[in-house]
Amino acid sequence: MTRYRVDIRVLPRPALLDPQGKAVQHALAALGFAGVDDVRVGKALSLAVEARDTAAAEREAHAMCERLLANPVTEDFVISVVGEM
Amino acid sequence: MTRYRVDIRVLPRPALLDPQGKAVQHALAALGFAGVDDVRVGKALSLAVEARDTAAAEREAHAMCERLLANPVTEDFVISVVGEM
Repeated sequence: MTRYRVDIRVLPRPALLDPQGKAVQHALAALGFAGVDDVRVGKALSLAVEARDTAAAEREAHAMCERLLANPVTEDFVISVVGEM
Repeated sequence: MTRYRVDIRVLPRPALLDPQGKAVQHALAALGFAGVDDVRVGKALSLAVEARDTAAAEREAHAMCERLLANPVTEDFVISVVGEM
């Protein structure tokens, strides 16, 4: 078994309102960052996962997202196995 | 000017305690995901940034992280300009 570093991004689906994203966008505009829009805010996770190989680590992370880390109705997730530890 | 899609990850620094990460790790263990540790939880942001080129978009995002999006004492951030829109 190898320990893999896995990065996960969980973001609200594009079709849904994202009040936190809007708040960040307005705060950025107030600071002078004018050319910014379509801001979405979600969760970033970094995990160490023990698995046989990269594919198994990704499958395990996928199962974690479906069961706990992401809301299947409102959120999308992206998994990257970024390397061995 | 071009619109770039920029992804930002903001995570608590490795040396700091991350109670949210610990909570997620325990919840995963309770669900049967045993081989998981070193869980860190932070923010994922996705923004559309108007800029002259990729380097300018990245500089802009860097300034946003330093001024608003990340806490310079407790958090690290990673910026990826993922493409034109």
